[in-house]
Amino acid sequence: MRIVVALGGNALLHRGEPMTADNQRANVHGAAAVLAELIGDGHTLIITHGNGPQVGLLALQAAASSETPFPLDVLDAESAGMIGYVLQQELGNVVKDRLFATLLTQVKVDPRDPAFANPTKPIGAVYDEATARRLAAERGWKIAPDNDKWRRVVPSPKPLEILEIEVLSFLIDHGVIVICGGGGGIPVVQLENGGIAGVEAVIDKDLASSLLARRLGADMLLMLTDVDAVYLGWGTADSRPLGRVLTSDIAGRDFSAGSMGPKVTAAVEFAEATGKPAAIGRLEDAARIVAGTCGTFVTKQ
Amino acid sequence: MRIVVALGGNALLHRGEPMTADNQRANVHGAAAVLAELIGDGHTLIITHGNGPQVGLLALQAAASSETPFPLDVLDAESAGMIGYVLQQELGNVVKDRLFATLLTQVKVDPRDPAFANPTKPIGAVYDEATARRLAAERGWKIAPDNDKWRRVVPSPKPLEILEIEVLSFLIDHGVIVICGGGGGIPVVQLENGGIAGVEAVIDKDLASSLLARRLGADMLLMLTDVDAVYLGWGTADSRPLGRVLTSDIAGRDFSAGSMGPKVTAAVEFAEATGKPAAIGRLEDAARIVAGTCGTFVTKQ
Repeated sequence: MRIVVALGGNALLHRGEPMTADNQRANVHGAAAVLAELIGDGHTLIITHGNGPQVGLLALQAAASSETPFPLDVLDAESAGMIGYVLQQELGNVVKDRLFATLLTQVKVDPRDPAFANPTKPIGAVYDEATARRLAAERGWKIAPDNDKWRRVVPSPKPLEILEIEVLSFLIDHGVIVICGGGGGIPVVQLENGGIAGVEAVIDKDLASSLLARRLGADMLLMLTDVDAVYLGWGTADSRPLGRVLTSDIAGRDFSAGSMGPKVTAAVEFAEATGKPAAIGRLEDAARIVAGTCGTFVTKQ
Repeated sequence: MRIVVALGGNALLHRGEPMTADNQRANVHGAAAVLAELIGDGHTLIITHGNGPQVGLLALQAAASSETPFPLDVLDAESAGMIGYVLQQELGNVVKDRLFATLLTQVKVDPRDPAFANPTKPIGAVYDEATARRLAAERGWKIAPDNDKWRRVVPSPKPLEILEIEVLSFLIDHGVIVICGGGGGIPVVQLENGGIAGVEAVIDKDLASSLLARRLGADMLLMLTDVDAVYLGWGTADSRPLGRVLTSDIAGRDFSAGSMGPKVTAAVEFAEATGKPAAIGRLEDAARIVAGTCGTFVTKQ
């Protein structure tokens, strides 16, 4: 099967773990072993990844040492280089008989997307409320609660088009394992003169991966994180994991409590548009999720 | 002609100019216009670029805000994302009928390269001597004079092999304009177990571009900077620019005074190995340098 695999930021850096080169390398090493198993099973993988902790760190670093921080489109490109490199290298060390390519990926969004007026995507470190409010005042950040802590939030417009889709298709058709769409892709808009320009936003990597999977004719969209399934009633006494579900069972429900909202939307969009399955679950369970015996497995209708 | 074009760090950020996103964007915009002219003339370009100012900034940013800075291989990958993105976008805005791809590029070096014991490659900002010595003591940097100022220096081992060469060839053969080898490529070594690991170094981008040009069967290696030619006696009263020269005229001479040493070595290596020309000159003169009427034009013998 041709599978678009979206690696969650939390699968690449465990929650609460400091964002260091060594921690990132160790987690990517673990992810590479999982991906290698899927490749060994004969699947064609297209690999995307989150960048929440990384792009937040880069923004903090830039803020700490420079009066004019680099915009989020450039930081996304940096984080795609940073993570893509480590991922390609670790994967290449366990899968020796294949070619790999890590490509920068620009993703078009609508400049009139309402997300620009209503930032919701958390990036960077978590803070207690007082610290978050101080940083927001100092740096002009928007902030929002994230479980029991606070984080910076940025606009997360809907991905509309992947500019490099032709090159990506071409490589994948010829057996190259591609790492792309890092951090949801670099957010760009089309200007009135027809040109392309970056914008200050972070695209949700699951929604971007869903678009990519549709455009590439993927047989499955697989979203890997550090939670074993999508839960109904997450955080309540009645919470229960969802196994095999139909898109009609979950479309329109609110999964924001467990931060599963974008994953569910991405899954529904993919399954509805293609009739192919989308699945969500824990990184370590990847092979079983593909087999349909683990995680939340979403099919059309 | 198939031309590997190496854009110098000084062609992407003017000497002395602050390293801001706007300055970088403006300079890349100018470089894109020059490259578009070459593409319009019918040449197939493979584009590489320096990252001295950028990787230095990233290292400073990381040092300013983190106790465990990311290693230079990861910073190189970040800078390749940062610069490659802006370059691809600006180029795509003037060349609308072609496909582009920016790829991360790992370049193998020898772990026993003597450069590891003798760092010589300047990166980052320039400092007065006292500041440079203080930073060296605080951060464990090696420093060295750079004209009348001082800079941090890091190991610059010789590039031996480009790991992604097959994918790069494949894309170029199919008409894709490729941006690769950013900052000389990500420095890696082969481990005894056959695996690949990054190392703390910055590969000279002209030497890496020369290797790339040889491996890709390029018809020309074109190194663009902010100086109009290679000079004999740079900085002396007798200095004079070199126009058309043979490799035997310049091989073994010392061009370190004008920082042209690696460019001359890269040119000689390419011309000697292939019998094809290598040229060095100012970004704005690119089309005339290719025509052989400007810059330093190096041919075999």
